[in-house]
Amino acid sequence: MHTFRLIIACPDRVGIVAKVSNFLATYNGWIHQASHHSDEQSGWFFMRHEIRAESLPFDLEGFKQAFTPIANEFSMTWQVTDSAVKKRVVLMASRESHCLADLLHRWHRNELDCEIPCVIANHDDLRSMVEWHGIPFFHVPVDPKDKEPAFAEVSRLIDEHEADCVVLARYMQILPPDLCQKYHGRVINIHHSFLPSFVGAKPYHQAALRGVKLIGATCHYVTEELDAGPIIEQDVVRVSHRDRVEDMVRNGKDVEKMALARGLRYHLQDRVLIHDNKTVVFD
Amino acid sequence: MHTFRLIIACPDRVGIVAKVSNFLATYNGWIHQASHHSDEQSGWFFMRHEIRAESLPFDLEGFKQAFTPIANEFSMTWQVTDSAVKKRVVLMASRESHCLADLLHRWHRNELDCEIPCVIANHDDLRSMVEWHGIPFFHVPVDPKDKEPAFAEVSRLIDEHEADCVVLARYMQILPPDLCQKYHGRVINIHHSFLPSFVGAKPYHQAALRGVKLIGATCHYVTEELDAGPIIEQDVVRVSHRDRVEDMVRNGKDVEKMALARGLRYHLQDRVLIHDNKTVVFD
Amino acid sequence: MHTFRLIIACPDRVGIVAKVSNFLATYNGWIHQASHHSDEQSGWFFMRHEIRAESLPFDLEGFKQAFTPIANEFSMTWQVTDSAVKKRVVLMASRESHCLADLLHRWHRNELDCEIPCVIANHDDLRSMVEWHGIPFFHVPVDPKDKEPAFAEVSRLIDEHEADCVVLARYMQILPPDLCQKYHGRVINIHHSFLPSFVGAKPYHQAALRGVKLIGATCHYVTEELDAGPIIEQDVVRVSHRDRVEDMVRNGKDVEKMALARGLRYHLQDRVLIHDNKTVVFD
Amino acid sequence: MHTFRLIIACPDRVGIVAKVSNFLATYNGWIHQASHHSDEQSGWFFMRHEIRAESLPFDLEGFKQAFTPIANEFSMTWQVTDSAVKKRVVLMASRESHCLADLLHRWHRNELDCEIPCVIANHDDLRSMVEWHGIPFFHVPVDPKDKEPAFAEVSRLIDEHEADCVVLARYMQILPPDLCQKYHGRVINIHHSFLPSFVGAKPYHQAALRGVKLIGATCHYVTEELDAGPIIEQDVVRVSHRDRVEDMVRNGKDVEKMALARGLRYHLQDRVLIHDNKTVVFD
Repeated sequence: MHTFRLIIACPDRVGIVAKVSNFLATYNGWIHQASHHSDEQSGWFFMRHEIRAESLPFDLEGFKQAFTPIANEFSMTWQVTDSAVKKRVVLMASRESHCLADLLHRWHRNELDCEIPCVIANHDDLRSMVEWHGIPFFHVPVDPKDKEPAFAEVSRLIDEHEADCVVLARYMQILPPDLCQKYHGRVINIHHSFLPSFVGAKPYHQAALRGVKLIGATCHYVTEELDAGPIIEQDVVRVSHRDRVEDMVRNGKDVEKMALARGLRYHLQDRVLIHDNKTVVFD
Repeated sequence: MHTFRLIIACPDRVGIVAKVSNFLATYNGWIHQASHHSDEQSGWFFMRHEIRAESLPFDLEGFKQAFTPIANEFSMTWQVTDSAVKKRVVLMASRESHCLADLLHRWHRNELDCEIPCVIANHDDLRSMVEWHGIPFFHVPVDPKDKEPAFAEVSRLIDEHEADCVVLARYMQILPPDLCQKYHGRVINIHHSFLPSFVGAKPYHQAALRGVKLIGATCHYVTEELDAGPIIEQDVVRVSHRDRVEDMVRNGKDVEKMALARGLRYHLQDRVLIHDNKTVVFD
Repeated sequence: MHTFRLIIACPDRVGIVAKVSNFLATYNGWIHQASHHSDEQSGWFFMRHEIRAESLPFDLEGFKQAFTPIANEFSMTWQVTDSAVKKRVVLMASRESHCLADLLHRWHRNELDCEIPCVIANHDDLRSMVEWHGIPFFHVPVDPKDKEPAFAEVSRLIDEHEADCVVLARYMQILPPDLCQKYHGRVINIHHSFLPSFVGAKPYHQAALRGVKLIGATCHYVTEELDAGPIIEQDVVRVSHRDRVEDMVRNGKDVEKMALARGLRYHLQDRVLIHDNKTVVFD
Repeated sequence: MHTFRLIIACPDRVGIVAKVSNFLATYNGWIHQASHHSDEQSGWFFMRHEIRAESLPFDLEGFKQAFTPIANEFSMTWQVTDSAVKKRVVLMASRESHCLADLLHRWHRNELDCEIPCVIANHDDLRSMVEWHGIPFFHVPVDPKDKEPAFAEVSRLIDEHEADCVVLARYMQILPPDLCQKYHGRVINIHHSFLPSFVGAKPYHQAALRGVKLIGATCHYVTEELDAGPIIEQDVVRVSHRDRVEDMVRNGKDVEKMALARGLRYHLQDRVLIHDNKTVVFD
């Protein structure tokens, strides 16, 4: 279904819903989905509408012009997107293939509504898998003694491919602060622990050492502080004393790829609104 | 928070949301929560609003009068309820205490927003537990050879206690069709299987025989057809070859009471809309 | 770790464990894992040992000879397998790729300890994906008016490739009774419902119609009766009124592939013992 | 079923299982359940047997004498318990009733195989609920400026009631180090977070602040370091942006009581072996 997605965040007050739905009704807009959230603690209001595009008398640009006065009146942070315009997602990987293979397969089978203009990896191992899908693969090795040139090249590639969004599909490198800032709210990472437990390296080893009975994965937006960005999605799986670290790694992979795929889907459908360091996810 | 809850179901068309939110905005109504659902298959639209009562210029009766023209215009099935008026829930039980004890404890600790005017049971075993909570207990034995007098008495008690809702907390008796009809959409049952698997008697025995790896429980509205009414909530728990029937019974109890408590909570907050034999649950 | 796996089922009585562990101790066998199960209802006893191969003075054939007297004494159904000898698994598919792609990827990354001598499919769609993995692909179309020739060819291919095990990775065709019998206990299917609910065709449509709040998948051994064989593994995922059939299909796919991968892993590691129509799974 | 439970931990080597099962077979012991675990990392071996008591020629004391030589030979840490001798569990609580009510109800309905000689609380609120169950209730207020007298009294009460085990059912006070040491491995706590996340006070507030998508509870043995003892059981429940702290508290309660009840059941059945700061749980 071809829809426009209207995403709004603003200070809460009476009349927002009426104003917006009135606007839509005036133009005969058919609301396919609508979700609201009043956050009592912050006093903010969040809203997402999907409106059937063919029911409206204008295109996306026309929508923006018509809606701007309302947005200004309510001091909205807002955007409207066209479901027919696929987001461009650059995937970044390292040697581990499970998340990358999962996303590529979903994309290949039309389960992920996006373009994948390229994959960037710091190792060459996954080239053949990527290229089988007809997607360009760029091997950008990272020199541990001087990472800057690699990240300059990464940044250039992301720009060149006009990425709307970057997904770190177990990329295993920490992005430098300037990249985090430049693509703020548009870089999605999968961390292989149930954050905030086990930040940083080797979370499954940390989990085994602590003797937890569940392990997890966290899909989140990347910020400058490591593994501390707004969480989009999390999931867990049960482990026991029988599970060695390598069993946790294997079982964790399934949780990682599921959490990442769900989180990315939410993002692609403009279901995630970031506020402070938290997310509203209209699933 | 004192709210009015406006629940609407009607054939879908453009302008419903605008009309309703306009109505609310006209009277300066502060929308605390709003949920929509357009069901593509049936072509129906469902909506639930919670509006802060103190923001509105009228009481419940005034609301009803003011809203009726809109409701008529859109052929709505609708109701508006006052969160300050607690629903009256008659609990029915037999000998098994886990669901009853769970609901009583939640009520006692103000977790369930309702009145419990009485408990009716076909055995006397749970009297003391009920009376400790200060709730009248009625023992209405059911003669297997002539159940009619018992159900007449049950019906009389329900009426006398002005029940808005009846909960079969493992009552273990099948309600006669006339009772099902009389309280249509207001009798909630917990069935100890993951319906539609294992309808009827001894579902855990059936589950053990089939060798399933998960067992479940189903909270649903009672209709004349046994275990076939609209489902409100379901949940499952893992079992293995190590679990005998009695282990399934014990583990199943936890699932039963959780599914029932969640389902009842949804009902009490007017979050459940029945359409055909299915439910929309605005959780 | 190189191990021998000793799997035993026999009528329960005193002394089985002692006899077996004595046998192992006599030969200095290092028990890596041991699992027991006494089934009270059937009066049967089940046991699985993993013994470090290098700790034993004989090879698999020698083990069999040495152990046979004990097996006879206790009327055991038993087998011993060598972890170094990979099982040969023929995968069968149709047009849906999610289960096949998942298994191929796990195999490719050494997560599934088996050989995959070939993939057989009744459509040609997935040829390229299979061949990329270096695995032969056989397209055996099934004529709905005369299925016999196709299944004769399927049977021939399975034999020719010396399959220890056949996996129906959403094959979508019902195997004829003679094939079910011939490979009894060695054909694994994934059914896209939480059995015994929704046997047969279009289970997600059935689930949507019934309005269930969880959907599931069932990994089971194939028997002549459709979707009624011994269950190895099941899992579920939550759905709501918002999920259309196509959403259930998409979410169900993830459950299907996870349940199938887990079930197959158990089978490959000789962790599943079939008794009557149920399984003991030593996970 | 009347059983003896034999629990063993010792350095791993060949022949342990044979020796133990031989011992049991010599005396015609009928093994009802047996579980093993070889921990590769630590090189330790763990074992639990349930043996039908009536199949053995001696009582518990006789068993101990007969088994001691084997235990010494293998440097075992071990115990044998009689399933007919119920453990004595002192419950400690504060004002929150959900965990206490849940445990009392399970005990009342014979779901928890133990004696509850008394409940100790630092507030008097729950007296009536406890006394309804026929269990003595001791109110031991804790003076925040001088906690020592209170804990001296707590210690005295635990000793006087000959507790085998103490359960902190949301006791909300930190036990002093000497009490932790005195009852090492015998004090079970429920912490209302998914440890190691959110140690200490107000974990739900911490969780809300971090914006996690799952909240949890952890049942663990108490050690001197706060919330850092060996974990017995954990569980989680999904939350969303719609959940305020009070919703997390309410939903978390259900997870807390379930995790605590399961953890305590494992402990009562001698299924938990502590090694270093981790547990082996033979569930």
